[in-house]
Amino acid sequence: MYPDSIKNLIEAFKYLPGIGQKTAERLTFSVLDFDDEQIELFSDSLKEIKKNIHPCRICNVLTEDDLCFICSDHTRKKEILCVVDDVKTVFVFESMGMFKGQYHVLEGLISPLEGINPEDIGIAQLLDRIKSNSFSEIIFAFRPSIEGETTSLYIKRILEGLNIKTTRLASGVPMGADMEYIDSLTLERALTDRKELE
Amino acid sequence: MYPDSIKNLIEAFKYLPGIGQKTAERLTFSVLDFDDEQIELFSDSLKEIKKNIHPCRICNVLTEDDLCFICSDHTRKKEILCVVDDVKTVFVFESMGMFKGQYHVLEGLISPLEGINPEDIGIAQLLDRIKSNSFSEIIFAFRPSIEGETTSLYIKRILEGLNIKTTRLASGVPMGADMEYIDSLTLERALTDRKELE
Repeated sequence: MYPDSIKNLIEAFKYLPGIGQKTAERLTFSVLDFDDEQIELFSDSLKEIKKNIHPCRICNVLTEDDLCFICSDHTRKKEILCVVDDVKTVFVFESMGMFKGQYHVLEGLISPLEGINPEDIGIAQLLDRIKSNSFSEIIFAFRPSIEGETTSLYIKRILEGLNIKTTRLASGVPMGADMEYIDSLTLERALTDRKELE
Repeated sequence: MYPDSIKNLIEAFKYLPGIGQKTAERLTFSVLDFDDEQIELFSDSLKEIKKNIHPCRICNVLTEDDLCFICSDHTRKKEILCVVDDVKTVFVFESMGMFKGQYHVLEGLISPLEGINPEDIGIAQLLDRIKSNSFSEIIFAFRPSIEGETTSLYIKRILEGLNIKTTRLASGVPMGADMEYIDSLTLERALTDRKELE
């Protein structure tokens, strides 16, 4: 029914997560209203992104250069390392601007159930980096989950004796949350980690 | 913070309707997992669509050829014309497969309030077509609205004396709808248009 050019773009939009047939059709028709410049920028940036973007040689943050904007910034604290399981976390942290140390991006989290082992997520590279630097603290900023805890504990155990403090993000009830919708695991953690009023 | 290649694609995704910063970021990161073939198809089909797609010479349905798939199909009924205000309606109708006549796509609806006059939506082209063919019925399949009624009545009045039946889609309560959420205009129309049980 659709001409090929329309059909092809609908299929392309469906590659994107959360975009089904109906949304892909709507987006495709909207492209017909783009001006030539917009089409060119969209089309070119799709081609450029895979060609230009790669992980930073030191920390795996996405960059177009040899070193990312964090590793090449010599004003940042050298002694604190924040380990994340997803590069997006780095950009979220940076958009807040509160953390001024270094980052390291793992390729996921250890998950024995899914057959994901330490060697699959680049832990050797992280350990090499830790051993050849003098970090005083390592913060694990993984999404709160069993896999996150497994991965933190695995790394913490290897680092024992190195005199490096290991910490994790506080977890608990999110600000502004409606108490009746908090899941029991989160509530349990919020209770265990309760803080004394000062 | 983001490298340029990432920033550019985020901006491009934001051209799309309903896509804000957060969604654009999520879609952009997902593109990093595309394989080369997917990137190429996506990028190429963006460029192709504006280059290849244009309105059919007769009816304005989008096509890559001189005539669209409707106008070039000689098995379809020649005497019934369905007039729509948006080409997407044609594809919705065709996906149902129930209508086997001809279509004509106007470029919107008459709206005195927004300053959209008959000459802005291509009514002259429609009237020329009607006068040089022998349609026995013209169905107005506009979205139910004041503008839709204005446009139908405007065309109907011009066609008076030509012995052409003009009809509109039935409007009323949608199938499966929850009665308490039906707006009063729809309900009023459903009541006025009530049908006797047979």
